[in-house]
Amino acid sequence: MQKNISTATIKRLPKYYRYLNDLLAKGIDRISSKRLSELMGFTASKIRQDLNSFGCFGQQGYGYNVEYLMTEIGKLLGLDREYNAVIIGLGNMGQAIANYDSFQQTGFNIIGLFDTNPKLMGVSVRGNEILDIADLKDFVAENRVDIAIVCVPKNKAVAIADEVIKLGIKGIWNYAPVDLEIKHKDVVVENVHLSESLMTLSYRITHKG
Amino acid sequence: MQKNISTATIKRLPKYYRYLNDLLAKGIDRISSKRLSELMGFTASKIRQDLNSFGCFGQQGYGYNVEYLMTEIGKLLGLDREYNAVIIGLGNMGQAIANYDSFQQTGFNIIGLFDTNPKLMGVSVRGNEILDIADLKDFVAENRVDIAIVCVPKNKAVAIADEVIKLGIKGIWNYAPVDLEIKHKDVVVENVHLSESLMTLSYRITHKG
Repeated sequence: MQKNISTATIKRLPKYYRYLNDLLAKGIDRISSKRLSELMGFTASKIRQDLNSFGCFGQQGYGYNVEYLMTEIGKLLGLDREYNAVIIGLGNMGQAIANYDSFQQTGFNIIGLFDTNPKLMGVSVRGNEILDIADLKDFVAENRVDIAIVCVPKNKAVAIADEVIKLGIKGIWNYAPVDLEIKHKDVVVENVHLSESLMTLSYRITHKG
Repeated sequence: MQKNISTATIKRLPKYYRYLNDLLAKGIDRISSKRLSELMGFTASKIRQDLNSFGCFGQQGYGYNVEYLMTEIGKLLGLDREYNAVIIGLGNMGQAIANYDSFQQTGFNIIGLFDTNPKLMGVSVRGNEILDIADLKDFVAENRVDIAIVCVPKNKAVAIADEVIKLGIKGIWNYAPVDLEIKHKDVVVENVHLSESLMTLSYRITHKG
């Protein structure tokens, strides 16, 4: 696996992984760059260039081995290990994420659910009971927690992120509609921007045809 | 407004819009490409190149007018008009979207909620009552509906998309974890892939430092 992979290529990795996963689920075990290009909407030469850059070379007349390619891209994405995650905030979005089984299938285990709302305490979602946020500290001391999925309202997100970082959690997946700018160099934050996807839709509605 | 804007630039438009919106909310009315570069993590020269490509030129020693820039990018994104949307499927994800007020602020009005679950009929979310999906046809006949937000389970998404298209809705924002491949040339679909964002997080956790 080579190291000099461009940022643009890295951004495409999850999409490659998703398409290869779908192909494998359909029982397709090899694919040409041309066919992959038609499916994914990138040019075949861009695909060959991307895949070459991390050491995957197709064979003339054979194409790429789907499973091998998916495994290699999975390793690059850090999907050759499992991650333990807790969800903080079990409003609708938090519960939607807790119920989304495809995350678990990719190796992201939801091991704890935390909220402040007394009405939610003890409610069970997919086998996990919702606990009081006050218990998070003990929970983190007793369990390896890699990722906090933050689904609290906008005005609480910064405080929750600070608390989570103080407890030593190194990854934050933020659904609150505010960019968390984290200064700690060993903490990684990924902000989800649903509105950007909606604007892409309005762009395409406006410019179609 | 020029027409020859690259796909890569177009993909960055929602992010520009979001940052400019935040700046304006903070009362900042002008900004240099250098400062915008620090905020957004693109190089200043890429930012100048992007903004030049749609006819926005910064002034030496002044920078860019934030409101003008946001308005122009908003026009490109089709945000100078309003869109009427219905949500189909009011499980947790559908209800989360129904409660997300920032979409409405950007001009996306949620005007109808539809489900098949009898227990949800008549339940009100932000002033809209959840209606039976059987009533969607009449609703679309009586109201302009630009976008269907599809939040149904994976196995129902394709059938719902077919139905929605048959009713003449031209935009689909799909949250079901399946790619909807729509063949109708005047229908636009944007699939939301939450798992891609999660893989970007695991990539960054794996490669940090």
